[in-house]
Amino acid sequence: MITSQQINEFTQIVGENFIFTDIETRQNYGHDETEDYNFPPNVVVKPANTIEVSEIMKIAFQNEIPVVPIGGRTGLSGGALSIHGGIGLSMERFNKILEIDEKNCQVTTEPGVITQVLKDSLAEQGLFYPVDPSSMGSCFIGGNIAENSGGARAVKYGVTKDYVLNLEVVLPNGEIIWTGANTLKNSTGYNLTQLMVGSEGTLGIVTKIVLKLLPVNQHNVLMLVPFYKAEQACEAVSAIFRAGIVPSALEFMERDAIDWTMQYVDGVSVAINDGIEAHLLIEVDGNYPEVLMQEAEKILEVVENYEIDEVLFADSTDQKNALWKLRRAVGEAVKSNSVYKEEDTVVPRYELPTLLKGIKEIGKKYGFHSVCYGHAGDGNLHVNIVKQEMTDEAWQTEVPKGIVEIFELTKSLKGTISGEHGIGYVQKNYLPIVFSDVELHLMKGIKKLFDPKGILNPGKILPDNL
Amino acid sequence: MITSQQINEFTQIVGENFIFTDIETRQNYGHDETEDYNFPPNVVVKPANTIEVSEIMKIAFQNEIPVVPIGGRTGLSGGALSIHGGIGLSMERFNKILEIDEKNCQVTTEPGVITQVLKDSLAEQGLFYPVDPSSMGSCFIGGNIAENSGGARAVKYGVTKDYVLNLEVVLPNGEIIWTGANTLKNSTGYNLTQLMVGSEGTLGIVTKIVLKLLPVNQHNVLMLVPFYKAEQACEAVSAIFRAGIVPSALEFMERDAIDWTMQYVDGVSVAINDGIEAHLLIEVDGNYPEVLMQEAEKILEVVENYEIDEVLFADSTDQKNALWKLRRAVGEAVKSNSVYKEEDTVVPRYELPTLLKGIKEIGKKYGFHSVCYGHAGDGNLHVNIVKQEMTDEAWQTEVPKGIVEIFELTKSLKGTISGEHGIGYVQKNYLPIVFSDVELHLMKGIKKLFDPKGILNPGKILPDNL
Repeated sequence: MITSQQINEFTQIVGENFIFTDIETRQNYGHDETEDYNFPPNVVVKPANTIEVSEIMKIAFQNEIPVVPIGGRTGLSGGALSIHGGIGLSMERFNKILEIDEKNCQVTTEPGVITQVLKDSLAEQGLFYPVDPSSMGSCFIGGNIAENSGGARAVKYGVTKDYVLNLEVVLPNGEIIWTGANTLKNSTGYNLTQLMVGSEGTLGIVTKIVLKLLPVNQHNVLMLVPFYKAEQACEAVSAIFRAGIVPSALEFMERDAIDWTMQYVDGVSVAINDGIEAHLLIEVDGNYPEVLMQEAEKILEVVENYEIDEVLFADSTDQKNALWKLRRAVGEAVKSNSVYKEEDTVVPRYELPTLLKGIKEIGKKYGFHSVCYGHAGDGNLHVNIVKQEMTDEAWQTEVPKGIVEIFELTKSLKGTISGEHGIGYVQKNYLPIVFSDVELHLMKGIKKLFDPKGILNPGKILPDNL
Repeated sequence: MITSQQINEFTQIVGENFIFTDIETRQNYGHDETEDYNFPPNVVVKPANTIEVSEIMKIAFQNEIPVVPIGGRTGLSGGALSIHGGIGLSMERFNKILEIDEKNCQVTTEPGVITQVLKDSLAEQGLFYPVDPSSMGSCFIGGNIAENSGGARAVKYGVTKDYVLNLEVVLPNGEIIWTGANTLKNSTGYNLTQLMVGSEGTLGIVTKIVLKLLPVNQHNVLMLVPFYKAEQACEAVSAIFRAGIVPSALEFMERDAIDWTMQYVDGVSVAINDGIEAHLLIEVDGNYPEVLMQEAEKILEVVENYEIDEVLFADSTDQKNALWKLRRAVGEAVKSNSVYKEEDTVVPRYELPTLLKGIKEIGKKYGFHSVCYGHAGDGNLHVNIVKQEMTDEAWQTEVPKGIVEIFELTKSLKGTISGEHGIGYVQKNYLPIVFSDVELHLMKGIKKLFDPKGILNPGKILPDNL
């Protein structure tokens, strides 16, 4: 597929230390965190700067070679898988924070910076980048742009798209563009910036990112509330907002999720009474501790209307970190426990109890167990369907039927099929559940406009038969 | 251009009471607030619902008749002008708030609802839609979507695009789509919602709007700070943020702006000492009055580092309303004073003093006077170039050169040419100052994808010679 002549050309661009054709490296760049898939590229190329990306793309465009931009490989929808081979374009050398602009509360960064590293560097300057996907210790900020990542603080602070002001992008034909301006407001032409965010590396390769920032909030209060009924935990979520509180995090964990995670993570343990079905992890933040205590008390008043056990207040930074470690490890813990499929359902938040109930009924109908957790404040529920003792046949025939019904349920509740993980490879054929033919053809037209030869991250987002 | 046969067809769709061909009505729908332009449509049609819009568009598409969606006609870039005649599609009968969904903190509304009416109806239910363009007493929420409108509270709460979850849209060929889902998070396919927001009625006609809302903030503190030097007022803007405060409004007004407005508006008067060049109007809001007082004190500490006169605290609702009335009337007051051109410059906020200084120098060079005011917290400065005693010739030859230089300056400061008014008719030929040919051709491709025959709001946004 890729000739030795082309390999030579790429080597001249990036240097011989940054191009790999051995099977080990290719397999290493052939997976992310999506199930057990591995689609190795034919060659792994690691460019150092925008010009190198542009030169690679010009050759790829001319020769119609597939190119898949690869970030931290923590994705959950298969966005970084080289399903048609070609060039795996690792962005790991784009690892510089270019300018922390304290005066304008902005940062310009390369896409290969690890999200946690970016957040920490900004915090040192008193600046706050609020988006915190659970994978932030290893995911790249560029991957967050690609998937429009969310996380626990999205409920108060929004998702990645809400912080992106401007992007430098290399188009499939190698041309370099900027999508906008470094301004908080912008009504100048069509919004190319927002079109690029969440496009999963299918329209262009992001090479520079300008983000807006906030001042750091100095205080927070964190509490863990055990509910005897999982559906009541879901009901409490919208009741908290209706009491006028906007928490900085409002996370839901089913009993299995928390039990399995305590076995998986060392040194984090919470005593849980028999009969507890779910927990809410609730945080409020701000600069005035006395206000946070008032808000915490209001939240207590709300949750006490439900069947709950004793509320745990984290009373030290260590205890807060332990609870967050627990919450952030749920995904990995559940996945380590069994073969799985993760669905990223999202609905208006008041519909959460209906969604949870429906998922359990659908599971019963098709014979699968699911472990649910997620960002309840946003109505974003991660549904981990675990194989456990299911037969391979049932796993392959019954589960997909169940997924269709789950997605039809989210649609009927005015929700959709991905809140923050993207469509990528594994959800693309479910897209017609939530979009009409006309809508899908508009999306196909957008793809074609940016990538007329279909070389950039092919076989993603859009359904196969479109 | 439009045959009597076609008029009959449109009449059958909307009924004879809702179609107009008389010159008075056509001229009435041929202007907005952009300078003194009037481009009447050939016929004014007032559909009642989505199906009627769709049927009208099918006929227009088949016969290649231009269609211009018309809202509250308060626009400042000529987005609603029928510059190629055709159908003026007034959305005024889309005036129903369809569902206030308190449980999910959302509202579904038709686009012809006046923004202030929407805000007030929501406030009655304890819900807060923060976007507040100065024209909110007469503009339509649909027009806000079209222009991605901002306003005074954008500095803390964001602009229209930050609240739009989902849109029902009639495409130029009459097809009806929904752009997204009613969810706070969404990573499902390309972001058609954000592509539609700010597209100035050139890609589709918005017929239903789903917005997210916040709980109402119960308290605020408002202060007016007089500065002896206008540039120091601009400098104070970013200093306030660097002190860790995010005000809910931070407005800048040059001396002329406030003087002219006091003459224009009855019953609002502020004593201003000689030598004062500008004012900042600063608001903080929240639920805890004691916190707001602390924040106000911090702001005082910041502004006292500059040459200021005595700060006025608004100590009653009446006084607050009076100050806001003054601020909101500036645009109209300045425009009533002289023939004018309004530019909607926006830069990163720390660059405001440089922008203001540059604008004054450019004005000197080309012999024009400008009155500047706007949303300084966002770096969004409205530059009103007033004709006053300039000759017609200088107005027509020198001013455009000056505008080019002002826009080049905003670009060099990493800003752009419209923060919240849109490009529309009057700014389209300046677009190449901020976008490259490649970027402009992507935008042209998007227009062509949605509107292959170019019938919807033709001659807007994209430069004539593209």
